[in-house]
Amino acid sequence: MHFTRDNIDALDKIKKINLINSCSGYKSANLIGTISKKDITNIAVFSSITHLGSSPPTLGFILRPTTVPRDTYKNIKESGIFTINHIFEDIIADAHHTSAKYKEEISEFDITNLEAEYHNNCIAPFVMGSPVQMEMKFVEEYHIKSNNVIHIIAEIKNLYIKDDILLNDGFLDLAKGKVAAINGLDAYAIPNNNKRFDYQRPKELNSMK
Amino acid sequence: MHFTRDNIDALDKIKKINLINSCSGYKSANLIGTISKKDITNIAVFSSITHLGSSPPTLGFILRPTTVPRDTYKNIKESGIFTINHIFEDIIADAHHTSAKYKEEISEFDITNLEAEYHNNCIAPFVMGSPVQMEMKFVEEYHIKSNNVIHIIAEIKNLYIKDDILLNDGFLDLAKGKVAAINGLDAYAIPNNNKRFDYQRPKELNSMK
Repeated sequence: MHFTRDNIDALDKIKKINLINSCSGYKSANLIGTISKKDITNIAVFSSITHLGSSPPTLGFILRPTTVPRDTYKNIKESGIFTINHIFEDIIADAHHTSAKYKEEISEFDITNLEAEYHNNCIAPFVMGSPVQMEMKFVEEYHIKSNNVIHIIAEIKNLYIKDDILLNDGFLDLAKGKVAAINGLDAYAIPNNNKRFDYQRPKELNSMK
Repeated sequence: MHFTRDNIDALDKIKKINLINSCSGYKSANLIGTISKKDITNIAVFSSITHLGSSPPTLGFILRPTTVPRDTYKNIKESGIFTINHIFEDIIADAHHTSAKYKEEISEFDITNLEAEYHNNCIAPFVMGSPVQMEMKFVEEYHIKSNNVIHIIAEIKNLYIKDDILLNDGFLDLAKGKVAAINGLDAYAIPNNNKRFDYQRPKELNSMK
């Protein structure tokens, strides 16, 4: 099946967003937690959180245009702080429901069975039970001009991990935490067959095919 | 288990890169194909390819610092064209091997069992058998100052999909294509239990908990 750029541009909206949201491969499944100046908590599902580097420990994610109200963005810019919480098997339906558009005065914690919890001095809420929880500090943002989205860059301030998913060499076995991966806009999978490979060095020339 | 930022910064290098590469959740598993001015093809594994938007159909990915030679980056900047190919079950070991550092004169197609194929007028190679293959046009790049990486922005020019993974509403069922997801630096999973959810609208207030 071949879609040219013209074919893609001519698709009806739903078909186009399903297709293009599926075609980058599996995506991370996270809930971002924030709090407003008026102390209203917000939880929203994001599938664009990406590793940028380990020193300093930096992650990035993409926000849609700011032409409509975006509680997550406003809260991050006001407080400088947010949390990232991995979506896991038990909370998938509630996590996905946070994509519904509620007014700013309503906390998704009051609408769903998701429960807030707090660690140390972080004012933003964490999602209880999440096997990986991170307190993030906003660092900088880039406006991607060609398609009008914002790339948020943030550093990990604190990292909370369920003991049994952390291996001796620092690897987190996400399968043990029943962590979800997102396919497209609306499909969630719980991968369960991770296989690790060795660090790869060049083969000797005489072993080339 | 709690890691403060100081704890993270103090970890030995391997432990730190394993931990921070695992903690964003599952990642996309793709091979980027390019070709040099001297007609040498290059294939390299990337786990940072992310959906940025559907109109125009735009993806982004992160490149490590340019202080060491990076064939992929140089080839993209010179030709303006590259391919993205989903890693699937049968090619995981060879795909992961492309992370080994070979000299520019050596094509990863000559080192591994990966096979090149070509579609229409695209000069960059595709990976044969990959269930989703995309011809990408370089659009712009952003230097992320805080941790010195490059964010490449590109648009889909042509999209090639194995027929049986495309559903009527445009959704690509990546499980049917045995597409891989990456956990950390070196673990690959083949998710097989995708479940789709409906588009979410706000609940009526009287159904709130």
